[in-house]
Amino acid sequence: MANFQLLKDLVQPAKTKIVMLIMDGVGGLPRASDDLTELEAAGTPNMDRLAVEGCLGQQHPVDIGITGGSGPGHLGLFGYDPLVYEIGRGVLEAVGIGFAVTDMDVCARGNFCTLDGDGLITDRRAGRIPTEKCAELVKKINAAGINHPEPGVEMFVEPVQDYRFVVVMRGEGLSGNLSETDPQRTGAAPLPVVAQDRASERAARLYNDWIAKATAVIRGEKPANGMTLRGFAKYPDLPKYKDVYGLRAAAIAVYPMYRGLASLVGMDRIEHHAHTVEEEFEVAGRVWNDYDFFFIHVKYTDSRGEDGNFDAKMKVIEEVDAAIPKLMELKPDVLIITGDHSTPSQLKAHSWHPVPLLLWAPATVRRDRSVVFGEREASTGGLGTFRATDIMTLALAHAGRLAKFGA
Amino acid sequence: MANFQLLKDLVQPAKTKIVMLIMDGVGGLPRASDDLTELEAAGTPNMDRLAVEGCLGQQHPVDIGITGGSGPGHLGLFGYDPLVYEIGRGVLEAVGIGFAVTDMDVCARGNFCTLDGDGLITDRRAGRIPTEKCAELVKKINAAGINHPEPGVEMFVEPVQDYRFVVVMRGEGLSGNLSETDPQRTGAAPLPVVAQDRASERAARLYNDWIAKATAVIRGEKPANGMTLRGFAKYPDLPKYKDVYGLRAAAIAVYPMYRGLASLVGMDRIEHHAHTVEEEFEVAGRVWNDYDFFFIHVKYTDSRGEDGNFDAKMKVIEEVDAAIPKLMELKPDVLIITGDHSTPSQLKAHSWHPVPLLLWAPATVRRDRSVVFGEREASTGGLGTFRATDIMTLALAHAGRLAKFGA
Repeated sequence: MANFQLLKDLVQPAKTKIVMLIMDGVGGLPRASDDLTELEAAGTPNMDRLAVEGCLGQQHPVDIGITGGSGPGHLGLFGYDPLVYEIGRGVLEAVGIGFAVTDMDVCARGNFCTLDGDGLITDRRAGRIPTEKCAELVKKINAAGINHPEPGVEMFVEPVQDYRFVVVMRGEGLSGNLSETDPQRTGAAPLPVVAQDRASERAARLYNDWIAKATAVIRGEKPANGMTLRGFAKYPDLPKYKDVYGLRAAAIAVYPMYRGLASLVGMDRIEHHAHTVEEEFEVAGRVWNDYDFFFIHVKYTDSRGEDGNFDAKMKVIEEVDAAIPKLMELKPDVLIITGDHSTPSQLKAHSWHPVPLLLWAPATVRRDRSVVFGEREASTGGLGTFRATDIMTLALAHAGRLAKFGA
Repeated sequence: MANFQLLKDLVQPAKTKIVMLIMDGVGGLPRASDDLTELEAAGTPNMDRLAVEGCLGQQHPVDIGITGGSGPGHLGLFGYDPLVYEIGRGVLEAVGIGFAVTDMDVCARGNFCTLDGDGLITDRRAGRIPTEKCAELVKKINAAGINHPEPGVEMFVEPVQDYRFVVVMRGEGLSGNLSETDPQRTGAAPLPVVAQDRASERAARLYNDWIAKATAVIRGEKPANGMTLRGFAKYPDLPKYKDVYGLRAAAIAVYPMYRGLASLVGMDRIEHHAHTVEEEFEVAGRVWNDYDFFFIHVKYTDSRGEDGNFDAKMKVIEEVDAAIPKLMELKPDVLIITGDHSTPSQLKAHSWHPVPLLLWAPATVRRDRSVVFGEREASTGGLGTFRATDIMTLALAHAGRLAKFGA
């Protein structure tokens, strides 16, 4: 992974701008008809020109052969070994809906469930109630005056989707090493939260009290008259971009989850109303002078891959390509284009296949033989095959932001 | 190396079959006449077709620049870092002759030597006596009634080759941290076995007693009237395939040593009378339904390489290729073809050069540009260059046997 101690010693100031453009799940597999992947089949004249002027490689977001989720995938891109740094499920869920998690928070994923007269679970998902119903229940709980369990502690409850919601307990000195309340079967009552260490006893007591009160609030509801909480997790104490890379970093993403992930490493979430890639680039332009590093996230490559829609994924890539001139108008010094994992439309899922990477940096790049941006071209690119955690070091080097090591 | 803890968390059941076909020492060097290696010069239409349908890479069995023996080479292929997991010489020698080593065993390599009237060594190899003589001496020792030194402890002695034999001490709770008895020069007496830690004191005492008795048995022999023991080693406690990969694994090899190596990581040795590769594939077919993973070992690529016989090594590769259709009839889901090290016939020895690897997995492979199976093609293959210890993770991923890491 990025050697933070070494980087801290070597990082030097510069006026250069680095852009990391992430096409979520961009890596693919070749289709039968012409043996081309989504990226290879897409018409990408702009990225191909960047490939000629820059160089390519391929990277493993987590590690060779390992399929990563979005959390680990982005941690890898940001230089944090996902096998070392973990983002708990509760935090990921909160971050996923754009909740601004702080270092005082213990987050949990909640499920509404159905309880019988004896308090035993009859449906762990409460008949998969629609999101609107979920929001209504959350509103009721939030209106019940139970969210300040003791001075200095505040609870936040937010709906997610269907029967799922998120609970955040905020307070000084809380620890989140807590057991889950979902018994994982029907016919059993929800379990109490049990502290897994001494430091978490206070949070366990507060969570148990709150669950009892919140359950009382929805007791008369149908079918969702109970709840279980899982994935308790404290805000992860990740080193921050400013401290390890000396970068003022901005996160631009349409989906709140990715702004949230970026905020965990100290990037500023840039609020905006952009929907298209081109609009995201415009947002970057607006804050261009305030930052050194721009994480720009494109979601729909992954979404169309998960749909199994080769052509649609290809089109998203072409839309990104068409917007590239807008990005280049900003004159970045270093541009990296890659993904947080592969999502071959053939597999309709994330995969372990390495992700092609394009590095463009006119002042410092060693051009290779690449002439197009695609998986095969990248697999023989000048950068070779490496772990994603090395990308940030490469970016800093090409941006003139790393001093020489040793004499 | 394979991250066993991570894999244990991610491994999921599947019905897929993985075949690892090892051509021992397959990697070579180009000959002067046409600049082709043994593998490149060989006519391999079947493997070339698999290269088109699959993808290539090259791997370092131990590490870059390091020439590995068969033990480390295979450990690497099996996913065990040979720089972390060591198989002691004594165990390797026992395994090499097909002795079924157990976790109660302390093994040693023995040399018959010549002693003078004062018990000093005059020839450390007893004039390199032939294997038949060695077997005769071993038989004599085994018939002398000295192999049950105390209740619950049993000695096994087996001839190996020329003046070499193997001794195994089997008993509960024995430790094998013992010094060697070979003084490494003539004119000196064999040294006593000295325990290197408290736990090994019992084995040291028992070995010293046994050596004295065994030497007495052959005292009147010529020229082999003494012995030295080296490479004392306890059965290595390697994690097992079933536990770390969730695989029922079968080892099919003509040479007992390779079945023995595989048994150390928990593979079942498949007993058979196969001599040719095609016969080995038939053996695989016979046990196909009982296993998930098949390690199939071809020895003669290495043997002919060590002979320095380029053409003969090339012919062995062609024989393997000709048998491939037989293997493909079994319809493996994942097929990996590679070697445990290079043995260029030009060097007549193992070498450190990376070993070409072919990965074929019709449902999940990312095809690259490879059209033939050979060293140069593999060096620009889509899998890049990696350590052998990553092969098993790749195999599991392509076999659908690994869940996603993180959300």
